[in-house]
Amino acid sequence: MIRANDPNLRTWVPIPENSDFPIQNLPLGIIKRAEVHHVAMRIGDHVLDLAILNKSGLLGVDFVDEVFLSDSINLCISLGKDMMRDLRNRVSRLLDDKHDDLRQDVDLRESCLFHISKVEVCMPIKIGNYTDFYSSREHAFNVGSMFRDPANALPPNWLHIPIGYHGRASSIVLSGTPIHRPKGQSKAPNEELPSFGPSKQLDFELEMAFVTCKSNPLGTTISTDEAEEYIFGMVLFNDWSARDIQSWEYAPLGPFLGKNFASTISAWVVNLDALKPFRVEGPVQDPKPLPYLHFKDTHNYDIELEVLLESPRFNPSRISHSNYKYMYWNMVQQLTHHASNGCNIQVGDLYASGTISGPIKDSFGSMLELTWRGAEPIKMPDGTERKFVNDHDKIYMRGFAKNEQVRIGFGELVTEVLPAK
Amino acid sequence: MIRANDPNLRTWVPIPENSDFPIQNLPLGIIKRAEVHHVAMRIGDHVLDLAILNKSGLLGVDFVDEVFLSDSINLCISLGKDMMRDLRNRVSRLLDDKHDDLRQDVDLRESCLFHISKVEVCMPIKIGNYTDFYSSREHAFNVGSMFRDPANALPPNWLHIPIGYHGRASSIVLSGTPIHRPKGQSKAPNEELPSFGPSKQLDFELEMAFVTCKSNPLGTTISTDEAEEYIFGMVLFNDWSARDIQSWEYAPLGPFLGKNFASTISAWVVNLDALKPFRVEGPVQDPKPLPYLHFKDTHNYDIELEVLLESPRFNPSRISHSNYKYMYWNMVQQLTHHASNGCNIQVGDLYASGTISGPIKDSFGSMLELTWRGAEPIKMPDGTERKFVNDHDKIYMRGFAKNEQVRIGFGELVTEVLPAK
Repeated sequence: MIRANDPNLRTWVPIPENSDFPIQNLPLGIIKRAEVHHVAMRIGDHVLDLAILNKSGLLGVDFVDEVFLSDSINLCISLGKDMMRDLRNRVSRLLDDKHDDLRQDVDLRESCLFHISKVEVCMPIKIGNYTDFYSSREHAFNVGSMFRDPANALPPNWLHIPIGYHGRASSIVLSGTPIHRPKGQSKAPNEELPSFGPSKQLDFELEMAFVTCKSNPLGTTISTDEAEEYIFGMVLFNDWSARDIQSWEYAPLGPFLGKNFASTISAWVVNLDALKPFRVEGPVQDPKPLPYLHFKDTHNYDIELEVLLESPRFNPSRISHSNYKYMYWNMVQQLTHHASNGCNIQVGDLYASGTISGPIKDSFGSMLELTWRGAEPIKMPDGTERKFVNDHDKIYMRGFAKNEQVRIGFGELVTEVLPAK
Repeated sequence: MIRANDPNLRTWVPIPENSDFPIQNLPLGIIKRAEVHHVAMRIGDHVLDLAILNKSGLLGVDFVDEVFLSDSINLCISLGKDMMRDLRNRVSRLLDDKHDDLRQDVDLRESCLFHISKVEVCMPIKIGNYTDFYSSREHAFNVGSMFRDPANALPPNWLHIPIGYHGRASSIVLSGTPIHRPKGQSKAPNEELPSFGPSKQLDFELEMAFVTCKSNPLGTTISTDEAEEYIFGMVLFNDWSARDIQSWEYAPLGPFLGKNFASTISAWVVNLDALKPFRVEGPVQDPKPLPYLHFKDTHNYDIELEVLLESPRFNPSRISHSNYKYMYWNMVQQLTHHASNGCNIQVGDLYASGTISGPIKDSFGSMLELTWRGAEPIKMPDGTERKFVNDHDKIYMRGFAKNEQVRIGFGELVTEVLPAK
């Protein structure tokens, strides 16, 4: 077992009840203090500055300063899964209530452990390439039922290929960053000509994404056995979508301006190691995929997900409750497929899951599905209805894995929608 | 008139006949000598090392060293169009045969001006985001005729939107880099199940691409009047495509593994200024686009383009002769559309045109169109035929703008296709 995963560990750092960040989590992120960015780990409502800690020598291993003196975790995770496992284990030991080295060194402790309110939390990754998959069968089925033929809802390739497409890396922003309703060109089926204006169908998509920590040279492939060595960890992901813009533009080359106005990620990248206790079998894949997509072990994860909608007129109200375990294609298959033509994966790439919808209506991961394209609006606490997302609504996403002993969470992903400029 | 564009200028650097790189061009690129990368300009068959020249003081203006001591032109072009115009004018003056400052300084000249055979030419741009448009009407019509309905070949949105999609930045390589035939999943219409193996329909796409030198904050837009301030210059672009992989995967989210195994760019980024004398009117746009896509002045360019195919059994043989002037949507419209939803453009992004096909068969920009999906193979000089590209074929692309006085070219883009691994 990975030392840092031991459910019996307790830390001397105060941990609020139901925290997403017990000592068994220790995700990586970026903090800023006095205009300087450092790599940090989250523990409860505190952050541990790894740049300061590394200089102290207490980690017991030498990292080059630049690894943590950075405005992204890219260089750090590029050291590889083994080094990141070792780092997490070493920090776990320093925070363990059976060890006093850091706890008793008041000067050092006060210079590297801060309440989260004392720092600015920043974008964790410098994202090189961003791909969005389409790997929830329920989501693909729902979309196919609405826009194509309910009797043939899944595209013919869907059960054979973990379908994906390239998205825009530049417009991925951190949780907390407000976004403006996008303008764009759209044409409803009953309109003769397109028009340009603020989107009338702004939507979220409940997704998760993984971050890569290893590169393969262009022209080489990655087997399903090797894929996990490339996957550092995961974040929550909101793939904002303007449905009216998307449906007018997407044929034949895919989503573009209906997506690239903004996507949002959560701040703390959870090491895949920390999620190990929550591995579960995925859905049965029938028909059996081609051999290059066969895999060993289990690669789905039981991660509960929820979406809440808040407005100036009511508190956050849950509108969806899904689970990452519903994913038909797993991360290992997604990455192996992506590199199966020789495409080169890079450190700091982001690979999103696609909307994660479950089997029943309450578990659908977008307004499009929850309201069935607006036909069945959702009632909100103030008596209003929502077909899509309104200006000044805030969308929250939360995710955590939990058993009797430990809860590994992703923190909160929140975005306020501002009116179109 | 821009000083450096003066057609009467002559340089003291020897210029081979029909060179793409007279003193009126002066494109930017990256060279490597003794393991160090510098920004350089191309002149004839020579390169001028701007890092060395800048240190000499002869440029007459102070650039921070880092601008040219770099493995990409990104920081350099981020100084903006005015500074780049000034730089080109200043270099033009130093190379002008009426000026002796550099010519007579033998030590300096020998330390900064090299025959191209003495340096390694490297990837010019660190590409952040890559978008591929689909802006040649003839190409879209041909593809629509083959794969959809000849009577309704253009998609309904095509005449209203400069359609584009996001591509993979990591797999864009420099001219001269061999590529391996990709493997992938495909299923022909007459096959019951998909299979995995080397692509049987490897194709090139004759494109050009522009490089951006300015950023807009997320949530802001760029008008057609402003767009040119964001466009530094252009390169040749080969958007390699595996047609069999693409046609099985692309619905509903667009091209993915059929494209992202490799794309190729030419080495020297031609400043848009140098192309100014070759501006021409574009095709009439009917129906008139929505107001945000209206533009002033002319933004098409008369750039002759050709594709040649070479094999171990015969010399390069021309198979296509097209022109960039055929583009229906121009660069200004493409960029304005791209940012119309608030998407943030960044310095060093690459925006490709889409396949540039002309009105007659010889001007089609892909094997798909030239052989009409393999139905009409091309006869090669050795008596063999080509439906698509074979292993060990080399594809050359060339482009130049020319009038009675001057020829501004892009050099040669060449790629050898190696067998699948």
